[in-house]
Amino acid sequence: MAENQSDLDLQRLVRNINGSAAFNRWCGFEVSEVSRGRATVELQWRDDLGQYSGYLHAGILGALIDTACGFAAVTMVGLVLASHYSVNCLRPAVGKRFAARARVVKPGKTQVFTTCELYALSDERETLVATGETLLVVANGGGDGK
Amino acid sequence: MAENQSDLDLQRLVRNINGSAAFNRWCGFEVSEVSRGRATVELQWRDDLGQYSGYLHAGILGALIDTACGFAAVTMVGLVLASHYSVNCLRPAVGKRFAARARVVKPGKTQVFTTCELYALSDERETLVATGETLLVVANGGGDGK
Amino acid sequence: MAENQSDLDLQRLVRNINGSAAFNRWCGFEVSEVSRGRATVELQWRDDLGQYSGYLHAGILGALIDTACGFAAVTMVGLVLASHYSVNCLRPAVGKRFAARARVVKPGKTQVFTTCELYALSDERETLVATGETLLVVANGGGDGK
Amino acid sequence: MAENQSDLDLQRLVRNINGSAAFNRWCGFEVSEVSRGRATVELQWRDDLGQYSGYLHAGILGALIDTACGFAAVTMVGLVLASHYSVNCLRPAVGKRFAARARVVKPGKTQVFTTCELYALSDERETLVATGETLLVVANGGGDGK
Repeated sequence: MAENQSDLDLQRLVRNINGSAAFNRWCGFEVSEVSRGRATVELQWRDDLGQYSGYLHAGILGALIDTACGFAAVTMVGLVLASHYSVNCLRPAVGKRFAARARVVKPGKTQVFTTCELYALSDERETLVATGETLLVVANGGGDGK
Repeated sequence: MAENQSDLDLQRLVRNINGSAAFNRWCGFEVSEVSRGRATVELQWRDDLGQYSGYLHAGILGALIDTACGFAAVTMVGLVLASHYSVNCLRPAVGKRFAARARVVKPGKTQVFTTCELYALSDERETLVATGETLLVVANGGGDGK
Repeated sequence: MAENQSDLDLQRLVRNINGSAAFNRWCGFEVSEVSRGRATVELQWRDDLGQYSGYLHAGILGALIDTACGFAAVTMVGLVLASHYSVNCLRPAVGKRFAARARVVKPGKTQVFTTCELYALSDERETLVATGETLLVVANGGGDGK
Repeated sequence: MAENQSDLDLQRLVRNINGSAAFNRWCGFEVSEVSRGRATVELQWRDDLGQYSGYLHAGILGALIDTACGFAAVTMVGLVLASHYSVNCLRPAVGKRFAARARVVKPGKTQVFTTCELYALSDERETLVATGETLLVVANGGGDGK
């Protein structure tokens, strides 16, 4: 689908999908970088996103990872559905801003393997707080994709 | 910690933790059933929670699974931190209401293995839409837990 | 593929596949129970299978889980390929004999979700030593399956 | 434990552990490279290791990944036990030789997060055939480690 698209086209495509997802809008997911096989989703911290100690909720870590991985896949194969994803919580997720940087490990006709690193950004330092991976299936023919 | 607590005590404990997490409040996570080694977290559908096709966002599936697993663990070992969790997206998550039912598979001094089934509830039918599992570590001494 | 086959037919099918895999023969994997959506693979302990403390090697735990899950899937959709599998090592795997009991959680046209419990059998007791899950894809047209 | 050890010391340590595991000897696991936080385990193909189509059995992929990850962890924290590992089967694993290259993502006092890439080596080309990750716990005081 996205075979011959420029990075700018891909960015537009991904931003449109991001904008059409209510939860992404509510959370404030921002698509910051997109190229063939890669996507970054960023998020500004706010108190609503905390777990009981005030860190970024692990569910949001997963949502960022799953979303960034899906967008990375979209740039290579078009619409996809997540089948499986996993999240490693390496450190307490504390920061002003978070960035999930995903890339495609292996695209395929029916499945796409992706991986993601999630950083907490504070001033000029960035800290790896989580890693994750998502296995997606290509959504054939339809608005059924994720 | 929770060795001799009644189900009612455990429910109170878990509801307090749930109430102290900003994200859980925002989403509307409700603790419906708690007993030693088991916890159910429910969620009412609303449009804010959708992905781009209007299904429940996979990130929310993960947040429900991770949260219910954590609460199941809390009933046996006290405060815990999620280390790793994974989510299988079996079917499009469409429903009026969702219930994540978690149980402890193997408690331990440092680690707790848990598993979870997530159902979409619509009228009188319930459909298994996702499964998942969480590996947690016991949070020793401190408000550091998740 | 296996829609109308009796349990006996399914058992024969699965045993043929098991017998055609060199590693399964070397390890001594035995197919003990097969029905639609379910399969059990058993293994007799011997010293060759140990890790450095003499427990069953975690790699063999994974091989049993992956194999039993694949066979459970085969009974519903025919030949499959494992895409992803995971293993939880709950306790040291010590026993005279081991049994991996897998079942299909969700079959599909392109993907099959399965889960497995792995027991150590000693005299008359059985102990859950590991759990795992496998996500498989249907192998279309060919000897390409796993 | 391994704080001040040279790469040569680490290699000796890891090779000793590898040599003391019966399954590793049977399979023919060879420790080829070791440095602080990193380990590579190699394996020569032979027919005994095949699944039913003659590819390297997914169970061996997992055994290589789990083993290489464990050895990478050992170089930083001493003896460890695998709690959880997962395997992504990207392509049919066909080759004369295989190399699992693992590294520590995040070491800790109780837990170590690791990741691994598994290559099929044939003449002068290497192909990424699987990826995986292992979450390990530090084995305190005893010959109980994995």
